[in-house]
Formats: sequence, structure tokens, C-alpha cells
Amino acid sequence: MGRLRRSERLVYITKYLLQHPGETISLNSFVTALGAAKSSISEDLALVKSALDQMGSGRVETELGAAGGVQYLPGREGERALALAWELSTRLSDVQRIIPGGFLYLTDIVFSPRVAAQVGEVFAARFHARRPDYVVTVETKGIPIALATAYSLGIPLVAARRENRVTEGSAVSITYVSGSSRRLQTMSLARRALPAGARVVIIDDFMKAGGTVRGLQELLAEFKAEIVGTGVLMATADPPEKLVRDYLSLLVLEGVDDVRQEVRVRPSSWLLEEGGEEP
Amino acid sequence: MGRLRRSERLVYITKYLLQHPGETISLNSFVTALGAAKSSISEDLALVKSALDQMGSGRVETELGAAGGVQYLPGREGERALALAWELSTRLSDVQRIIPGGFLYLTDIVFSPRVAAQVGEVFAARFHARRPDYVVTVETKGIPIALATAYSLGIPLVAARRENRVTEGSAVSITYVSGSSRRLQTMSLARRALPAGARVVIIDDFMKAGGTVRGLQELLAEFKAEIVGTGVLMATADPPEKLVRDYLSLLVLEGVDDVRQEVRVRPSSWLLEEGGEEP
Repeated sequence: MGRLRRSERLVYITKYLLQHPGETISLNSFVTALGAAKSSISEDLALVKSALDQMGSGRVETELGAAGGVQYLPGREGERALALAWELSTRLSDVQRIIPGGFLYLTDIVFSPRVAAQVGEVFAARFHARRPDYVVTVETKGIPIALATAYSLGIPLVAARRENRVTEGSAVSITYVSGSSRRLQTMSLARRALPAGARVVIIDDFMKAGGTVRGLQELLAEFKAEIVGTGVLMATADPPEKLVRDYLSLLVLEGVDDVRQEVRVRPSSWLLEEGGEEP
Repeated sequence: MGRLRRSERLVYITKYLLQHPGETISLNSFVTALGAAKSSISEDLALVKSALDQMGSGRVETELGAAGGVQYLPGREGERALALAWELSTRLSDVQRIIPGGFLYLTDIVFSPRVAAQVGEVFAARFHARRPDYVVTVETKGIPIALATAYSLGIPLVAARRENRVTEGSAVSITYVSGSSRRLQTMSLARRALPAGARVVIIDDFMKAGGTVRGLQELLAEFKAEIVGTGVLMATADPPEKLVRDYLSLLVLEGVDDVRQEVRVRPSSWLLEEGGEEP
């Protein structure tokens, strides 16, 4: 690109930061890419930082000095996280979503690219400070929100499989009891998918008794991973005691009643506490 | 937010457009959000458009008039698409990736959030003009690139399952013969996942004989869907005749030889033609 005006540089820098979340970018790389003086780039960055900070959607961190750089950390906290949880609660508390057997249809929500991106921002904001190296999930419906969380944190995603795949080489498999259906299930992860001793955040779409996350914990123990956080999109109110402690859910499923045709989904209480009152 | 300076408005508009790809946003919504005059917003949009167009990564389309608005379409074409294909070819042509049996390990690549986002931009650029309503894939490894493609196109993702899930209600299932393993497989999709007559783009990670995509075609026929495009990350050179015509692959797997320890992956020829010569 030729010599750019300030307005063009601001657009370029904003776009570059947004598309490289969690990555430290040196001032010099902007100097080279934009053909501007270091002092101009510094001023540009200050303007971008001030604007993004004001929007309250993530933040820009700058490190000064020769090895200095700038990093964008997407995030959705406080009232913006709560607004998302209310929006999803409303969409999910729809009797049309009741599946015979007392299940709730949430496939369209968890596979929505926009919803996944926004949920990923909430988890990224919560777990960034714990410095995870990987996001881990288990196929299938947790993958979109886990991918989005990993994207926002700037780290890779690892997905355990329900069966061992010959195309992934040697793998570690475990059997576990699904907490809700009480069925024996298998979960496996390729040896090469995760280095030993990694710091991981577990992300999944749904938790009832917590058997799946408990299974993932056991699987991850085989990789000597340190689990620094666990996030699920929705947890059921019942049973109140899960097999897993210390998890974060965005939504609580109070109940699905397919006789009375009632569904009740609400934001988790930590969101209500941090995000202010119901709008 | 209070009254903003132009520099802040440019950052806000850039971020908003990037986070709402494929969506037409009215001038008035920016006027309201930013508390600026319509004429100022028009000038801002012209600046943002000119800067994004210059970067060659997607484009901004503006519609004039009372119902007018602005839309950002992410895209990666020409030399930028080819550069991505070369980068992935190099990473994948690594003998460390050979799995006994002549398979190639690509799980870390397909689950990389950054790679998925970039591959999604390539497919979005190719398929946008065909006005798809949905991206469709089949679990599991195709989900990240399919999600990213759907995100860039601003449309929903639908993922067929390998087995019928009771939690998704009534579903259509088909059995098909996997082209490479010659095994009988099952694929199913919930009735409510896709309305009849939708225009869909199929996205998957890998194609050998094409049996999986052929299976998806059959499944989609039950939904009277119109398949307007098919994209895969990587197709094998052998067999040259696939069960599916008219697909687009980014990469070609020339061969994996686990005796001689050789892997050869290269960009597809259409990328070489459109993107210029090898760098």
C-alpha cells in the first residue's frame, strides 16, 4: 500500500487488531505495513485504544519499550454479557423448542456463527487472566462456542472425539458414565493433539449432571493438563449438585415441561450480579 | 456514548462492520449510535470503504437512498487466497504428519480458529454471489471452516450428525457408502434444522472419493434444498474422478507415502491461475 492518510491507518489498525486477538503486535510491524513514522503510529494506536476502550467491548493493552507492542483482547462483560444472556434466554424460552421427551432444541442457537462469537467473547473475558494455552471441548455441539472462545483468546482449539479415529494416530481413550442418561460412553483424544502439562479451559454447550465435563477432566488428566476454567452455555437447575465444581454457565435451564408446554431459561446469577438489574 | 470525534467514529464503524458481515446496516443506525449528523456518517463510511477496499480483504457495498445502507463482505481472493493455500501446503507437507496407514494428520489445522477464519473468507468470496441461505456440513472436522464460512457470509450453519439424536426431534436419516472405506454410514438432520427449498453451500474438510458429500447431497434432496456450491479444504489427487462434480478445493493432496516418508500437498490449480505464480 502507498502512503496512507490517518483515517485509512485507523481503519487498517482496527481491522488488524480485531482479526488478531490475543496476539502482541509490534509497533514496527505497523510502521512497515503502513509506511508511516513511529510517532504517527503511536498516535494512531492511542486513538484506536481510546475508541475501543470506550465501546466497552474488549480492551487494547499496550506495552511500551523496544519490545513493546499492542494487543487486542475481545471481551463481553457486565451489562453487555447480561444483555446477551437475556436475549438468548428469551429465544430459548419458546415452547416451539420443546422436543418430545422433555428436551430443548438448541442446535440452531449453538451453531449460529454470531451467537457463538458473542458467547466466545464472554468466556474469553472471564478466562483470559488465567492464561490458558488451549481451549478443549468434546464433539459436537460445543465446537462452535469453543472455537469462538479460542479465537478470542488467540489460542488453539482441541476437540475430543466420541470414538477413536484411525486417521489421528495413537490416542488416549476413556470410558465414562454420562451423568444424565447413565449410559457408558467413550471419549478419546489423539496423543499429538495436546502437549503434556498444558493449561486448558474446557468449553461445552450443555451441562446436566456434569458427566461429560467430568469425563473430559479424566481424559485431560492423562495429558497432565491443568484445567484453569470451565464454561458452559447452559446448565440445568436440576440436579443442583453437579459432578463438577467450579464451572461457569451463561444460562440456567429451570425446566422443560412437555405436558404443560412450558420452558424457563434465565441468565446465571453471576451475570445478574455483575450486569445490573433486568432491563 | 457521548459525542465522538471522527477518529473514534471510524474505529467504531470499522469494528461494527467487521463484526456484522453480510448484514445491511442503515445509515440511520450509525447516526443514532454515534450521535453525529447524517452527512458526517456518510463521509465516515466513504473513508472506511475506501480504506477497506484498498486492503483487498473483502469489500464494502453501499446502497443509496432512503432504505440505503452499508454492508461488509469479508473475502480473500487472488494472491491473498493463494498465499494462504501455500502456507497451509507447506505446513501440511510435513512428514511428522504421517499417520500409520497412509493418513495425514490435519486435525490441528482444521481446528485452528485463525486458519478456519481465513479459509472461511476464501469460500465466502467464492460463494457469496450465489446467494446461499445456509452453510451445511457434517460433523465433525468440517465444522470450524463451515462455521467461519457461514460467519463471513452472515448466514446460519447447519451440521448433519453421524447418528440420530433424540434431543433434536424428528429427523431425516440416510445411509450411504463412504467412497474411500466402502463402509455403510449414516447421516441425519433434524427436520427443523433446515426449511424446505433453501439455497445451501456445502463445506467440508476433506474429500477423497466424495462419498460423504454425495451423502449430504442425498440428505439435502430430502429437504428440497438447492445446492449452490461445494467447498472442501483438501481433496486427494487420487481418485481423479470423484462421486461429486463441481466442487472447489483449496488444497490438493498429491500423496502420502508412509514407507518413503513423503507427503505432497499443493494449492489447487484454480488458485494458481487466479493468484499469479508461486511466490
